Amino acid sequence: MDIYDCILEKAKNANRAARTLSNMSTDIKNAALIKMAEELNKNKDDILKANMLDLEDAKSSGKNDAFIDRLTLNENRIESMASGLMKVASLPDPIGEVTRMWKKSNELNIGRVRVPLGTIGIIYEARPNVTVDAAALCVKSGNSVILKGGKEAINSNLAIYNAINKGAIEAGLPAGTIEFINMTERKAVEVLMKLNEYVDVLIPRGGSGLIKSVVENSTVPVIETGIGNCHVYVDSSADLTMAENIVINAKTQRPGVCNAMETLLVHEAVAEKLIPHLTETLSKMGVEIRGCLKTKRLIPDIRLATAEDYAQEFLDLILAVKVVSSLDEALDHIYKYGTKHSEAIITNDYTSSQRFLREVDAAAVYVNASTRFTDGEEFGFGAEIGISTQKLHARGPMGLNELTTIKYIVYGEGQIRE
Amino acid sequence: MDIYDCILEKAKNANRAARTLSNMSTDIKNAALIKMAEELNKNKDDILKANMLDLEDAKSSGKNDAFIDRLTLNENRIESMASGLMKVASLPDPIGEVTRMWKKSNELNIGRVRVPLGTIGIIYEARPNVTVDAAALCVKSGNSVILKGGKEAINSNLAIYNAINKGAIEAGLPAGTIEFINMTERKAVEVLMKLNEYVDVLIPRGGSGLIKSVVENSTVPVIETGIGNCHVYVDSSADLTMAENIVINAKTQRPGVCNAMETLLVHEAVAEKLIPHLTETLSKMGVEIRGCLKTKRLIPDIRLATAEDYAQEFLDLILAVKVVSSLDEALDHIYKYGTKHSEAIITNDYTSSQRFLREVDAAAVYVNASTRFTDGEEFGFGAEIGISTQKLHARGPMGLNELTTIKYIVYGEGQIRE
Repeated sequence: MDIYDCILEKAKNANRAARTLSNMSTDIKNAALIKMAEELNKNKDDILKANMLDLEDAKSSGKNDAFIDRLTLNENRIESMASGLMKVASLPDPIGEVTRMWKKSNELNIGRVRVPLGTIGIIYEARPNVTVDAAALCVKSGNSVILKGGKEAINSNLAIYNAINKGAIEAGLPAGTIEFINMTERKAVEVLMKLNEYVDVLIPRGGSGLIKSVVENSTVPVIETGIGNCHVYVDSSADLTMAENIVINAKTQRPGVCNAMETLLVHEAVAEKLIPHLTETLSKMGVEIRGCLKTKRLIPDIRLATAEDYAQEFLDLILAVKVVSSLDEALDHIYKYGTKHSEAIITNDYTSSQRFLREVDAAAVYVNASTRFTDGEEFGFGAEIGISTQKLHARGPMGLNELTTIKYIVYGEGQIRE
Repeated sequence: MDIYDCILEKAKNANRAARTLSNMSTDIKNAALIKMAEELNKNKDDILKANMLDLEDAKSSGKNDAFIDRLTLNENRIESMASGLMKVASLPDPIGEVTRMWKKSNELNIGRVRVPLGTIGIIYEARPNVTVDAAALCVKSGNSVILKGGKEAINSNLAIYNAINKGAIEAGLPAGTIEFINMTERKAVEVLMKLNEYVDVLIPRGGSGLIKSVVENSTVPVIETGIGNCHVYVDSSADLTMAENIVINAKTQRPGVCNAMETLLVHEAVAEKLIPHLTETLSKMGVEIRGCLKTKRLIPDIRLATAEDYAQEFLDLILAVKVVSSLDEALDHIYKYGTKHSEAIITNDYTSSQRFLREVDAAAVYVNASTRFTDGEEFGFGAEIGISTQKLHARGPMGLNELTTIKYIVYGEGQIRE
């Protein structure tokens, strides 16, 4: 069977399964998630063996440490994937909720009911845990899922898939609920991106190259989970101790993720009091500072920040700093360089806080809190399939609700349109 | 200036305007809509003159009557576009509504607030009223809009645009709020479909060729407003008088639109009582019947329906009929041939009604009512920019709310992530 036919068949299977799944009881879906967790634990050895193969390939092809770390599985990580499944089983089922119902003057009762999207394709890279996370969230929300992981993790992903799929089928989910594309050819993704008839949405998870390629080539609707060039703006009225704590947290607590801060904006009225002390602490923590001219005047031993620095998502212990003369200048800077992910103001001024909340266009806008909270778990969604940086369908952290759509149900008594 | 630069500039203007518009007060937006209506009425003569040019071209190039009708403007139609603007002014402003707000255990207060999408591109064909409708809904929902109408209506659209844009600017909306692409080259649309940096969403409105082309070629997210192959299923327990009324309404009240019915499914237990009488009435109304073998046994003088007939959106006075032996067979038929638009069951059986509502996957599912109600106005949204047949972002009739997205606003007191 050639690649096209193979992907088409998987998509058809998933699409067929979606019809059954959409009306599966919460009890059966939860039982399946629990069984999937059990099978994952039961097949630990096989999964670890498969992971060794991937790790050997990665090492021999000279992948860096961060890559190896993302790829590596161990008993703990497998157990944590299994508890992830149990956690999703414990979350409320989003399907079937009638979010609104109203009566028209012609006595039609119209309701909006939450239903699954249908079939979701997940295109990801070298993190094998995505195989489990994505399957768990899709099953719980009544969607079938087509998984296409990176070639570097193909052995690990296949072993994981075999375990969880066994659990899903044994618990009574229809065959095709979880489809796995066991091939590494580029063409497989190209085919998947054009199967609008069978696939309702694609979610790419990974680096910006992957995301860009899916956005540009897919005819299936895509939810973009993109980059975060996040700012913290310290207003003239800010509590400077709070500002320091938040900046340190937003920059250093986990610098490699999208909700970490990349640029610090400081009102000139507090620049002298804040910047030398704060950047000294940051430097001790290993953070490299790149600043504007005014910043460099306060702390001379730094590199001057370029426009590229302000535009970049470092994902690293590097911080760009800019002194601004007003809230407006901060807002303009964020408008120019921000990626509409997460933006924070530290202020004690009512008007500034309100203006920032209203005028910054981003998935999450904070007053007096760290940008690091932009996360499904932290927002209270229980789990997360990614953070949408587009505005269509879902914005910000996507939990179970974001994997659903609605349908209108209309109760009549013979009404016709005049 | 070449086409690329020209479209790019318009997109940048619209994008810049969106920033201001998103925080524009409801009062100013409403005042602008009223001024736009006034300018439309004031410039009636110019618009009608421009429309004459388009009509002459259309006639000399042999366009059919339906096309000419869609293109034709007269005083009444212009006045009705103006009252459309007034109507939108009177609708509630969707922007700024906090649809939910909750407190986390760390005392963060997280809210979901409704905000504009940003910049919306509308690609449409020969109906000049779309120029006004789309601009009205976008302005009210705080979005800037880029209008690209069909070349057959270019003079009419430009005259309309000049009038409403004058009103918008005079009322204080930023320049670029309503951009109009005054060119007929195919390349203009091609450029627009790739401007992800400046355009947040494209909504194609028109025939299936236009929609397919936009879905396939746009990298900007698209909301598909597609076809409706709608079914009415008459269950064995149906009130047959109600069934007749609904079928006649759904088929004949306005056969050329997407929520009109295309196929009638009849349970075999009531086929003999329903079909001959109902189809006689329909035939008298000019409806051509194409039926299955069982239908043909009841009314021999008809053409046998093919699979193509069941798959087709006739948009005409043609009805495909099929006798089924069970609700399951009806559900399977709808699953196979339906386009997930609007589907109805006529029944008095509780279980059948519940199963149909639950198991049919469509934007709108009806019990005992005509499919013709799938419409923003009829659903109570006050206005409609189109009917989405995809599942992402919006499904079914799209009103003002569907032209918005959300952002999370987070109120903290210095919280950092542990």
